[in-house]
Amino acid sequence: MHVFTVENIPMIKKGDDIASIICERTSIEDNDVIVIASTIVAKAEGRMFRLEDIIAGDEAKQIADKHGLDARFVQAVLNRSREILVDHPIFLVETDNGHVCIKAGIDESNVDKGYMIDLPVDSDKSAKNIGEGIENWTGKKVSVIVTDTNGRAFKIGQTGIAIGVYRIHPIKNWKGQRDLFGNILAVTEEAIADEIAGAANLLMGEGDGGCPVVIVRGLELRSQDGSIKEMYRSDREDIIKKGLRCLGKVGD
Amino acid sequence: MHVFTVENIPMIKKGDDIASIICERTSIEDNDVIVIASTIVAKAEGRMFRLEDIIAGDEAKQIADKHGLDARFVQAVLNRSREILVDHPIFLVETDNGHVCIKAGIDESNVDKGYMIDLPVDSDKSAKNIGEGIENWTGKKVSVIVTDTNGRAFKIGQTGIAIGVYRIHPIKNWKGQRDLFGNILAVTEEAIADEIAGAANLLMGEGDGGCPVVIVRGLELRSQDGSIKEMYRSDREDIIKKGLRCLGKVGD
Repeated sequence: MHVFTVENIPMIKKGDDIASIICERTSIEDNDVIVIASTIVAKAEGRMFRLEDIIAGDEAKQIADKHGLDARFVQAVLNRSREILVDHPIFLVETDNGHVCIKAGIDESNVDKGYMIDLPVDSDKSAKNIGEGIENWTGKKVSVIVTDTNGRAFKIGQTGIAIGVYRIHPIKNWKGQRDLFGNILAVTEEAIADEIAGAANLLMGEGDGGCPVVIVRGLELRSQDGSIKEMYRSDREDIIKKGLRCLGKVGD
Repeated sequence: MHVFTVENIPMIKKGDDIASIICERTSIEDNDVIVIASTIVAKAEGRMFRLEDIIAGDEAKQIADKHGLDARFVQAVLNRSREILVDHPIFLVETDNGHVCIKAGIDESNVDKGYMIDLPVDSDKSAKNIGEGIENWTGKKVSVIVTDTNGRAFKIGQTGIAIGVYRIHPIKNWKGQRDLFGNILAVTEEAIADEIAGAANLLMGEGDGGCPVVIVRGLELRSQDGSIKEMYRSDREDIIKKGLRCLGKVGD
């Protein structure tokens, strides 16, 4: 497996065609997985907004007070969330897409001062648009993963994770396969899209030397379809959400 | 970044010298990160045990009943755990080393029938032993990561994760660095050891074609020290643990 950055990606503006920007700067092969930071996808889709255009409600003001945050920013987070899992000391929500993350993934980094940047509205669709664009340009068959960085339970630090996919299943199912001794395997579902996103994130970097596009070559994972929603655990089965809701009820 | 398997690793037995087994089968370069599945480390360290040697207590019997598990297996999990975070419908514990995982990481896969296999007692120490062995053999300066696979909050599937490290810090700190527009970065701690473990896991596989040793080449991450404990969140700061304890108190 070879993992490398696409060099000299310019500063992305609203309306930019990310597929052609990538194809002009590297050569693509069949089965390449093109990993793209959501920041540039969101920028190309014009997902920047300004706090001065937002009016905060009472709930936003209450949460903002606990954190010392701008209530308009909190309102922006609420507008994009179907559930607040924790409002303090972290501000953890489930977005309308089912993605659980801090502050609905709204980011102040790598964007003009005074602006915020959202996640793409539908990252599967964004991945599909870019993937089809690359396939049309190159004639090669590829997969695309749109990534964000997320924290984890129990451990410090963030890793690159997938929030949208094109022609790759986020989960590889080993169910029914046997181990070296013929026993049925205990681990049956491998979260390959997140593993690929994490591998790519090692080369993306975060700072002003950041590389928002990374290619992972040498895996044979391309599928006919695939959606990030295959990876989200159903509410009913999610013991950690239950625990967080329990805290919300009894107070901390 | 180039990620590749070490081929033809034999079935590992108690007492095997993993460092020499690796060095005989591949060539190592400075700054290679040698990623090793904990299963073979534990086997070389003789961490197999049999259920018939364990006597289950009352707590083990109660938990076993909820799952339909063997109570002696549950007792083995309890013996290695300092806290049960959830006893049912999943059986999630914090091991004596601070690693939060299902069933204390005890595995029935890839081991002779009738035997169970533990995690290494101290995976940092295991990583150090193997790393120093490789450095002595090759004269090259390397890092080592011992891995397991773990589930995640909110999402289906497991990823490769680090449980022990040698000469690599599990967290890369971007604190104080600036983004493309000169703003201080929001994401400041990247969990690189887990990202590397996930990348390696893409090639390790789970089944009878599994490759327990993977080399990650092309990163410059070697450090003078490093411990997996740098990555574990302190109890006081862990809102998810608090939530799970809340469930334990009020019942589900």
